[in-house]
Amino acid sequence: MNYRMMARFVSKILIVEAVFMLPALLISLFREEENSIFGFAASMGIIILLSAFTGFFGRKSTGSFFVKEGLVCVGLSWIVMSLLGCLPFLLSDAIPDFVDAFFETVSGFTTTGASILSDIESLPYGVLYWRSFTHWIGGMGVLVFVLAISTGTDSRKGFTMHLLRAESPGPSVGKLVPKMKTTTEILYTIYVVLTVIDVIFLLIGGMSVFEAVCTAFGTAGTGGFGIKNDSLAGYSPYIQNVCTVFMLLFGVNFSCYYMLLIRQVKSVFKDEELRLYLGIVAGSILMIAWNIYGIYGSVGETLRHASFQVVSIMTTTGFATTDFDLWPSFSKAILFTLMLIGASAGSTGGGFKCGRLLLLIKSVKRNVQQVLRPQKVQVVSVNKRMVDEKVLDNTNAYLAAYVLIMVASFVLVSIDSFSFTTNLSAVAACFNNIGPGFDVVGATCNYGGFSNLSKLVLIVDMLAGRLEIFPIMILFSKATWGRK
Amino acid sequence: MNYRMMARFVSKILIVEAVFMLPALLISLFREEENSIFGFAASMGIIILLSAFTGFFGRKSTGSFFVKEGLVCVGLSWIVMSLLGCLPFLLSDAIPDFVDAFFETVSGFTTTGASILSDIESLPYGVLYWRSFTHWIGGMGVLVFVLAISTGTDSRKGFTMHLLRAESPGPSVGKLVPKMKTTTEILYTIYVVLTVIDVIFLLIGGMSVFEAVCTAFGTAGTGGFGIKNDSLAGYSPYIQNVCTVFMLLFGVNFSCYYMLLIRQVKSVFKDEELRLYLGIVAGSILMIAWNIYGIYGSVGETLRHASFQVVSIMTTTGFATTDFDLWPSFSKAILFTLMLIGASAGSTGGGFKCGRLLLLIKSVKRNVQQVLRPQKVQVVSVNKRMVDEKVLDNTNAYLAAYVLIMVASFVLVSIDSFSFTTNLSAVAACFNNIGPGFDVVGATCNYGGFSNLSKLVLIVDMLAGRLEIFPIMILFSKATWGRK
Repeated sequence: MNYRMMARFVSKILIVEAVFMLPALLISLFREEENSIFGFAASMGIIILLSAFTGFFGRKSTGSFFVKEGLVCVGLSWIVMSLLGCLPFLLSDAIPDFVDAFFETVSGFTTTGASILSDIESLPYGVLYWRSFTHWIGGMGVLVFVLAISTGTDSRKGFTMHLLRAESPGPSVGKLVPKMKTTTEILYTIYVVLTVIDVIFLLIGGMSVFEAVCTAFGTAGTGGFGIKNDSLAGYSPYIQNVCTVFMLLFGVNFSCYYMLLIRQVKSVFKDEELRLYLGIVAGSILMIAWNIYGIYGSVGETLRHASFQVVSIMTTTGFATTDFDLWPSFSKAILFTLMLIGASAGSTGGGFKCGRLLLLIKSVKRNVQQVLRPQKVQVVSVNKRMVDEKVLDNTNAYLAAYVLIMVASFVLVSIDSFSFTTNLSAVAACFNNIGPGFDVVGATCNYGGFSNLSKLVLIVDMLAGRLEIFPIMILFSKATWGRK
Repeated sequence: MNYRMMARFVSKILIVEAVFMLPALLISLFREEENSIFGFAASMGIIILLSAFTGFFGRKSTGSFFVKEGLVCVGLSWIVMSLLGCLPFLLSDAIPDFVDAFFETVSGFTTTGASILSDIESLPYGVLYWRSFTHWIGGMGVLVFVLAISTGTDSRKGFTMHLLRAESPGPSVGKLVPKMKTTTEILYTIYVVLTVIDVIFLLIGGMSVFEAVCTAFGTAGTGGFGIKNDSLAGYSPYIQNVCTVFMLLFGVNFSCYYMLLIRQVKSVFKDEELRLYLGIVAGSILMIAWNIYGIYGSVGETLRHASFQVVSIMTTTGFATTDFDLWPSFSKAILFTLMLIGASAGSTGGGFKCGRLLLLIKSVKRNVQQVLRPQKVQVVSVNKRMVDEKVLDNTNAYLAAYVLIMVASFVLVSIDSFSFTTNLSAVAACFNNIGPGFDVVGATCNYGGFSNLSKLVLIVDMLAGRLEIFPIMILFSKATWGRK
C-alpha cells in the first residue's frame, strides 16, 4: 500500500474542502451569525492544518498506484471528508452531537438527504448553505474534481481512470473523448450549466437568491436537503414543477447531454437506458395518479404531486410536496420499488441504477433463451453493442452484494424496535441515497429517533450506496490490509 | 413441441393423483362424512376420465423430448395437478369458492401451507387428510415419483434427468449413484423412512394416529398445514420439540443422509452448505432468544419457542407454537431474513436455499479478490471442489429473477391496500413456500382477505418458488410457444 501517495492525495482533498467552506463563512459574516462564523473559521483552520500535516508526510511520494489503492483512497477520502465536513455543524453548535453531525454530513456528501434535524428553519444561513452545498459537492464526486484541477502529475499510470471508475455511478464508465481530463471537464461543465439554468428558473418563480441556490444544489446533486421544514410543499406549483423537471434531468446519464451537444440526437433517443428510465417514470406516474386521484381535487393537482414524488424518489433526490406516507399501499409499493431502482448510470442519482436493471432483465432473458435453444450461443446487447461478459459478472456480483448488505442492515437497524416498514424503508432510503422513507422516517419525519448503532449502520449504507459498494467493501476487507 | 408425449405424461400424473385420493376417500367412508365421500369419489371419477382422454391422445407418442419440453411439462403438470386436486375441496363443499380451493391446493402441493381458511377444525377428516397429504406429495416432487414407478420407456434421451433437474430444489442436482432411477429410489426411501420415524415419535407423545400422520405429512414436506386452528401451540412441549427436530432434519440436503448410510460421516460434517444451514439456525435461535427472553417465563420456554419458530421458518414449513407476530422488530427481522434464505438444496424445503447463498457470498468475495489481485485467476470452490462457472451464472440469474418476481408481486398485491408489512411478507411467505407472514397474514391469521387478483399472483409465486422459477418463466415465455 502506497501510504505516502495516499496521504498526498488526501491532503489535496482537504484543501479543496476548506476552500469549499469559504462561501458559507462569507454568508455567516454577512448575516452576522456569530456561532457560524466561529464554526466555519475554526473548521477551516483545523482542516488546513491537517492538510499541511498529511501533505508533509506525502511530500516524497513515488511509485505506482494500483486499482486497490485507488479504491481504498476513494473510501478513505470520503470518510475523512465527512469527518471534517461535520466540524462546522459541531463547532457552530447547530448539531451538538457528534454522531448526528457525522450522519448529517455523510447524508449531504452522499446526496442522500436523510436528516436527523426536526427544525431546519431555525438553523443559521451559513450552516443551511453548507448543508445544501455538500449535496452539490457530492453529486459529481469531489475526487474527480480534485483530479480535474490538479496539475496532472497524478494522472499517470491510469490513476485517474481508477478513481473515476470507483467514484462514478453505474456499471461502466466510458470515456466521452480520448483524454480523461477533457471528459471530466465536459461533465463538470454540463453539471454547472444545468445548475445555473435551474437557479434562473427558480428565481423567475419568485424565490430569493439564497433559496434558489440551495434548492438547486439539492436538485443537482439529487440530494434532497431543503431549507424549509415542509420541504417543497409550501412553494407554488410553478416552483414544484420546475423542480420536477430538473430532478428528472439530473437523473439522466450525462453522456446523453454530451451526445446532444455533438448533435447525435438520434442515438440519444434510441438509448435503451434512457428509454427504460423515462418509461418507468411515466408508467409510475400514471399508476400512482390513478391510485391517488380521490385524495386531491383535480387531475392537474393529482398529476403534479404524482410526478413530483415519482421523479423525486426515482432520481433518489427525496424532496416532497406532500406527505406520500399517507398515500394508499399501492402507491407506496411503487415508490418503494423506485427507491430500489434509482436513477440512470452516469447521473448524479443513486440506487441500483436503470442501466444495471436493464442488464439484469436481459441476462435473465438470456438464461431462459439458453434453456430453449441450448445449441445457440447467446449474447447480451445494449444499444446494439455486445456487453462484455465481465460487465455482466460485475452487475450480478453487485446485485448479490446489494441484497446482502440491505438485508444485513435491515436486521441490525431492527434492534431499535421501530416498525418493519420503518426499518426496511430507512435502510432502502439511505442505501439508495434517497432520504425519506415511510412511517417513522416518512416525508414529514426524520432519523433523529434512531440509536447511534443504527445511525452508524445507515452511515455505512449511505457511503456504500454512493460509492457503489465495492470501495467500501474493500476498505473493510481483511485481504486489503494483509501483508502482500 | 411434442404434445402427444406431454399428454401421455400428464395422463400418468393424473392416474397417480386419483390413486393418491383413495386414502382420503376411505377415511371419509370410515367416518361416514357424506359430503367428503361424494367429493372424493366424484373427483376421482373426473380425474380418471381426463386421464383416459389425455392417454388416448398421447397413445402414439414418439420422438424425442428436449429440455424445453421437460420444463414445460413440469410447469403444466403442476398446474393441472392443482386444478384437479382442488376438486375434492369444491365438490365436498369444504371450500365452495374456486379461486380459494385452487389457492389452498397449490399451497398444499407447493408445500407452502398458506391457507384461506379461518376454521380448519370444522373440516371433515377426509378433507383434512387430503389437505395434509398434498404437502407430502409435493415435498419430494410427484413427477419424479411418476418416473420412478413408470416402466422406464420415457427415461430415454435424458428425459428423467431433465425433469428431475426442473423439479428438484437447489442450484445443482447430482446423481448419487450412476443410475438415475436408483437415485430417486434412494431419495424416496429416505423420505418415507424419516416420515415413519416422525410418526412414531409423535405417537409416543400421545397424538392419535390421524393427528400424527397429518402432522408428519406437514413436517416432511416442510408444508405447514396443520389440523388445529392454533397450529401446534396447543400441543405438549415434547411434541413441539419433536417437530422442531424433524423440520430441521427435512431441511437438510438428502444426499447427506445417503452419505451417512454409506458411512462417509466425515464428508457430511465438512459439508459447507450443511454448516451454513446449521450455523444460521443456531445463530438465529440465540439472537431471538436474547431478544424475546422477557416475554416467556423461563430459559427453557424461550429456547423452545425460539428454536421452533426459527426452524419452522428457515425450513419454510410454517408451523407455529406462538404468535411470533407479537415478537419485537429485531426477532421479526431475523425471521423475515430466514424466509428469504430458506432450507438446503436437495431438501424438501423452499426459499432461495443455503447452497445458493453460499455461492453468492463466495462470488462476491471473489469479485473483491479480483480487484485486489487482478493478475490472479480466481475460482469459486465448495467442499474443495471447483464450481463450474455455468452454475455460478445460473445462480446469479436466479437471484435476479428472484428479486424481480418478488418486487413485481409485491406491487401487484399492494393494490389490495393492506399494510406494507402484510404485502411484503405475504409475497415472501408464498414465494418461498413458507405460509404465514406478518400482520394480516401472521401466524394466527390467513389469506382469505385478499382479492382474487392477489390470490392469483400468490398462486403463481408459490408455483414459481416450488419449481425454482425457470419452469414457470418458460411456461409464460413467448419464445416457448413461437414457431420453431
